[in-house]
Amino acid sequence: MTDHGGDWAGFMESCGAPPLDFSANVSPLGTPESVRRAAEAALAETERYPDPQCRALRRSLAACHGVPMEWILCGGGAADLIYRLAAARRPQKALVTAPTFSEYENALTLWGCRVSRFPLSAETGFAVTEEILSAITPGLDLLFLCEPNNPTGRTTDRHLLARVLERCAACGTLLAADECFNDLLDDPAAHTLLKSLPQYKNLLILRAFTKSFGMAGLRLGYALSQDVSLLEAMARGGPPWPVSAPAQAAGTAALEDGESLETLRRLIRRERPRLSAGLSALGCRVCPGEANYLLFFCGAPGLPQRLAERGVLIRDCSNYHGLGPGWYRAAVRTGPENKQFLKIMEEVL
Amino acid sequence: MTDHGGDWAGFMESCGAPPLDFSANVSPLGTPESVRRAAEAALAETERYPDPQCRALRRSLAACHGVPMEWILCGGGAADLIYRLAAARRPQKALVTAPTFSEYENALTLWGCRVSRFPLSAETGFAVTEEILSAITPGLDLLFLCEPNNPTGRTTDRHLLARVLERCAACGTLLAADECFNDLLDDPAAHTLLKSLPQYKNLLILRAFTKSFGMAGLRLGYALSQDVSLLEAMARGGPPWPVSAPAQAAGTAALEDGESLETLRRLIRRERPRLSAGLSALGCRVCPGEANYLLFFCGAPGLPQRLAERGVLIRDCSNYHGLGPGWYRAAVRTGPENKQFLKIMEEVL
Repeated sequence: MTDHGGDWAGFMESCGAPPLDFSANVSPLGTPESVRRAAEAALAETERYPDPQCRALRRSLAACHGVPMEWILCGGGAADLIYRLAAARRPQKALVTAPTFSEYENALTLWGCRVSRFPLSAETGFAVTEEILSAITPGLDLLFLCEPNNPTGRTTDRHLLARVLERCAACGTLLAADECFNDLLDDPAAHTLLKSLPQYKNLLILRAFTKSFGMAGLRLGYALSQDVSLLEAMARGGPPWPVSAPAQAAGTAALEDGESLETLRRLIRRERPRLSAGLSALGCRVCPGEANYLLFFCGAPGLPQRLAERGVLIRDCSNYHGLGPGWYRAAVRTGPENKQFLKIMEEVL
Repeated sequence: MTDHGGDWAGFMESCGAPPLDFSANVSPLGTPESVRRAAEAALAETERYPDPQCRALRRSLAACHGVPMEWILCGGGAADLIYRLAAARRPQKALVTAPTFSEYENALTLWGCRVSRFPLSAETGFAVTEEILSAITPGLDLLFLCEPNNPTGRTTDRHLLARVLERCAACGTLLAADECFNDLLDDPAAHTLLKSLPQYKNLLILRAFTKSFGMAGLRLGYALSQDVSLLEAMARGGPPWPVSAPAQAAGTAALEDGESLETLRRLIRRERPRLSAGLSALGCRVCPGEANYLLFFCGAPGLPQRLAERGVLIRDCSNYHGLGPGWYRAAVRTGPENKQFLKIMEEVL
């Protein structure tokens, strides 16, 4: 059941001590104090049902992104919205990249969708290539693109991305762009498809607070689209009250805390090249990731187990389609943590 | 989108002041302090993903109910588990009562299920009658029974319930018994089907913390069944991490707080007859509910609006199948609140 990173509780059960967790892609700075305080304050009224429509939060998000609040649907993490999208759209044919986040395919196949995989190659650093355009054909109902991609950390060239969106529009394909890690790119504004929302009805963007604000424990994500009837169908495609009261309050507070995000972005920008260089120096083949995590290949047998014995968790990526044994993902964390991680890697290798 | 009670946020938006909320069936005593403290403590680690398997909570639930922890699946409120059950089972034919909680039918029809409704009659106080046995036939995949039923507050006679379960077993029908309000009956142990779990593989019980522990804002429910493969399919039938970290911690704490629940039960036992008598004295026809809410009929036009003008929310039940205009549900709250409610009702009528 646990085939994602961040199984903190599982590690505690087997090892009895908290891990140094490089397996989850969340902010190493933890939850900003203002966000935690807002969640705490919301606990004072926890006997009430949360606002099923997340009105206050959606109003803040609308102001933040410059779109009408009707274009926004909140969910219990982006994963919740992926399942709601599958339920609302019930695509017959969909395309995902390989590798990518596994929940797209899990949600799609739940609804009997035929899912094709567009292979990304290690040789090109797992970049999405122009060839994807010919894989988008009439009859393709849905394309999931993770930007930046999880677990590779790569974004699609923005000119190519524009052509992909245009091609999707021509083919009647909905483009679901998962931008959950967009905030952690060096230049988020340059890569987001937000500005295309008014023009393209076939565009749905997914975002989350999980990573940028260290809110994985609270479960909060949102979808943006001008296609209000699609969002309404997604709202009906799962249980009411998808977002808890503390998560709604935390999200609203997070939107007012641009500074924490900027600090985090600076940290990632500084630390990612160091971590990458360190892993390369140890003989690992590192994918040129652009976000707060790095995909790398290391042939040493039993690496995750040997790291776990030393209290370090990494994400074994062998269960991703398009990857295999030897591929791992490590989060970019604080300077001291990254140094410690590299030191332990050195001991192990 | 908001067709349940407890739309507190909606009331605040339109009226600007907090309502006296009789529309939601949650504990009028609020969240116990120990539960709130546990949720608060969990916020300290909210940058971590919650345990996707809810191990600590399931272990406590297993001890509490005397079943193996493998028989338990936690979800983001009982509603989440209803949708996961529909996804896991994909029934062709299902039966629900009318009236009952609308999310059964919403979740079932999402998957294309043909849903029949077993009509409950006001004349018999909306009790489930023996006739339901002949509605359970081979080819019926799923029967939802809400015990006590929402919005009527009635339980099915326990001897009849045993025959229903037996008949379901004979017909290959899964009985999903929603016991979310069981804790708030005068004698919960006498009515629960928990003791039938070891014997019947075709039994699934739903429970929630929402009502008993005033935890509506946190979203936490669970399902019990000896059919472990069904629970596994339900886990895969929706997004991972369905339960936030604060909700898991709050649930574990709630299980250690039997005293709050006993206090609440005593309050409901004392106040329900008073509220019922008060409503009857005002000319309302009151259904003999057994839980922490009362269904009643009142012919006065525009009752909810006129109450709302005075700051009181009740649940308009006209959108329930099997009910219609004039039917309302009111929660049983504290003595002073119930008195105030009756006074305002008197003014309005």
